[in-house]
Amino acid sequence: MTQILQPTGDRVTREDCVAADAANPLAGFRDRFRLPESVIYLDGNSLGALPVGSAERAAEVVEKEWGTGLIRSWNTAGWFDLPRTLGDKVARLIGGNEGECVVTDTTTLNLFKALASAVRIQQAEHPAKRVILTERDNFPTDVYIAEGLADFLNSAIERVSAETGTAYEVRLIDEDLPLEAALDDDVAVVALSHVNYRTGAMWDMAAVTAAAHDAGALAIWDLAHSAGAVEVDLNDADADYAVGCTYKYLNGGPGSPAFVWVNERHQARFWQPLSGWWSHASPFAMADSYTPADDIRRFMCGTQPVTSLAMVENGLDIALAADMTTVRAVSLELTDLFIRLVRERCGEHPLTLVTPEEHARRGSHASFLHPEGYAVMAALIERGVIGDYREPHVLRFGVTPLYVGFADVYDAVEALRDILDTRAWDAAEFKVRNAVT
Amino acid sequence: MTQILQPTGDRVTREDCVAADAANPLAGFRDRFRLPESVIYLDGNSLGALPVGSAERAAEVVEKEWGTGLIRSWNTAGWFDLPRTLGDKVARLIGGNEGECVVTDTTTLNLFKALASAVRIQQAEHPAKRVILTERDNFPTDVYIAEGLADFLNSAIERVSAETGTAYEVRLIDEDLPLEAALDDDVAVVALSHVNYRTGAMWDMAAVTAAAHDAGALAIWDLAHSAGAVEVDLNDADADYAVGCTYKYLNGGPGSPAFVWVNERHQARFWQPLSGWWSHASPFAMADSYTPADDIRRFMCGTQPVTSLAMVENGLDIALAADMTTVRAVSLELTDLFIRLVRERCGEHPLTLVTPEEHARRGSHASFLHPEGYAVMAALIERGVIGDYREPHVLRFGVTPLYVGFADVYDAVEALRDILDTRAWDAAEFKVRNAVT
Repeated sequence: MTQILQPTGDRVTREDCVAADAANPLAGFRDRFRLPESVIYLDGNSLGALPVGSAERAAEVVEKEWGTGLIRSWNTAGWFDLPRTLGDKVARLIGGNEGECVVTDTTTLNLFKALASAVRIQQAEHPAKRVILTERDNFPTDVYIAEGLADFLNSAIERVSAETGTAYEVRLIDEDLPLEAALDDDVAVVALSHVNYRTGAMWDMAAVTAAAHDAGALAIWDLAHSAGAVEVDLNDADADYAVGCTYKYLNGGPGSPAFVWVNERHQARFWQPLSGWWSHASPFAMADSYTPADDIRRFMCGTQPVTSLAMVENGLDIALAADMTTVRAVSLELTDLFIRLVRERCGEHPLTLVTPEEHARRGSHASFLHPEGYAVMAALIERGVIGDYREPHVLRFGVTPLYVGFADVYDAVEALRDILDTRAWDAAEFKVRNAVT
Repeated sequence: MTQILQPTGDRVTREDCVAADAANPLAGFRDRFRLPESVIYLDGNSLGALPVGSAERAAEVVEKEWGTGLIRSWNTAGWFDLPRTLGDKVARLIGGNEGECVVTDTTTLNLFKALASAVRIQQAEHPAKRVILTERDNFPTDVYIAEGLADFLNSAIERVSAETGTAYEVRLIDEDLPLEAALDDDVAVVALSHVNYRTGAMWDMAAVTAAAHDAGALAIWDLAHSAGAVEVDLNDADADYAVGCTYKYLNGGPGSPAFVWVNERHQARFWQPLSGWWSHASPFAMADSYTPADDIRRFMCGTQPVTSLAMVENGLDIALAADMTTVRAVSLELTDLFIRLVRERCGEHPLTLVTPEEHARRGSHASFLHPEGYAVMAALIERGVIGDYREPHVLRFGVTPLYVGFADVYDAVEALRDILDTRAWDAAEFKVRNAVT
């Protein structure tokens, strides 16, 4: 795609940005969202914006399907099939096939299912493999759930064996232990976030998956900051499992249920232990023992929160109406622009870019360290420029090309510049420190 | 409480029922629900009715809190605290204290957490205990999740030990193996549904809990068909854990998140393995290893579906406005009436009561076997009398005294009688076989 932004001079002007917005092939999508007038929203990678149609869908579910349809709506309104119908739509955005994905539960729980399933496969094929490899800088819940799983298995092992060297272990990649060094014969599964929640750094999914497979490990990808934001092709990368979020770039609504994708070759192998009745081969037979479904239904568990779940569809339909190659190209232009404007306009301030500049290694947000990051973000939010803050010291700006444009980025950096120039952060009261990513 | 229904003759008449409705102290609650005119709803034990105010609350969450508040609403709208604020309200209905309950995830997942926590405690205190005791006739997902947990732990044990007798086992109480015989020294945890989903039979919570404790086992109660329906006092019974549902008698909405209650003495002991970031002692510190919260937060996991979750509050507030002793008394009168009318008016038809007649052993529904149960229920539903069908052959009629009255029960039994007398079920097409309980 031709570069949309064509600066007329050495430095980018607001007029250049306005011209780029006029030329932006995604500009029409802005009208499909209901954003407050006074806000520049750069936190769609934490909670996406409200799409037109979602409030109407929620009202339909509550008033008509629940209020009038009552229990009948499980069938007549398609509630029971929602995890699969929505999963098939998610799959189209991430290089999955029909029947490989369900929308259900939370990202953390789905990661537990994927980890547990992968560990079971390795127990059968390579029982000595006992390491779950992840990243110290991963979104914390991914590390915590791996620790929980290992700890739980170890509690059973300790009951019958005092031998060392048999326990499961969570190993963390970091500066001192890069992936290549960490990926040894003990590794059962590599579980990484494709795009880092803090820095926006992106792994090469195909290369890391291949390296994992070469080492006899399985690869699980957390796509929380990828799905709907960057191009993902899970089957092309030969990934084993993926999980992710529908409330960020997919605009499903606050805390909307997550997805889990499982390569078809693993779906019918072993149980995942969250074996609720929705994962049974015949859930309505009310059988008194468990027989797992032999397909993606095995990765469901219990009854889903229908109102929150049903709204996911509208967000997905909007994402599917956009061309992901275009979304990705515009996203990179917007993060490029953010980085460039910070350099051009805030150069004298102590802002340190922590997002990779190389396109192949960058997701859809730009993050900067600032010693007073917390207060600076508070001041920005008070002016209606909503990004977010992540410990330690990180100002995070997500660009969501379906509703963020070039002039938005220009105005956001101008607000940042003014706050830094005037030290306006001193007075700011920060209200979103504990916002959920 | 004085008996509300005072029949004027030997057999109950519709006029008797209308008079009872006029005298019913709960009659005013009917106006707090939006029920379709043409429906008698006897399936509130599967999916409760829509309360007045819930649609408005959903609209507020979606349009105002999400659409305008965006990410800020995690704090400004109290989203992050919802599991605990709602949990404290649930606790008041089930004999729990503040800080003992959260509303989160699904009943099945919460049962997994409770089972896992109980098993960990027993590993430390009585490592030989390796049996999870439940009931063959339990709601299937309770059995399945116990099987999943045992199977997962066993997979780890098998990796390091070929010894028999060390594996975890799910043992099922049934006609051939009653509780007293099944509850031996091997039992680590007794996990039962307080009220049976199919028959409506109710366990004596205090007696069974005491028996479990006498055997050195912990007691977990599934209150799916109890909370809001019968009087429950978890602390009085000295229960260890409880889980349950907000979308049945608590009218939270389709698939609304479930609750988990943990006796304060167990909250800070060991991990439960679904250790997502919401259960961390400092979730927003983004620490790179897991430190569990030392209170009920430990039983949370990941980000919750806010729209579905927020609607729970309205249903709870209505339940809390009613006196549970009155609700229970009216409920028993209504199931008594249902059973009596079936005897008086459908005596010649092959309907077999499977619900205990003894009040202390009955929940809030009445169930009957009929050889053509599936088709009979289809015919009832076509006439607007919505009960449900459970394999095998069970017609199930839930009474929810907040919106079901005496004349409703009369009319429902009349519809049943007419269908049986005329064999009208032959033509019925059943549309809700797969409805979610």
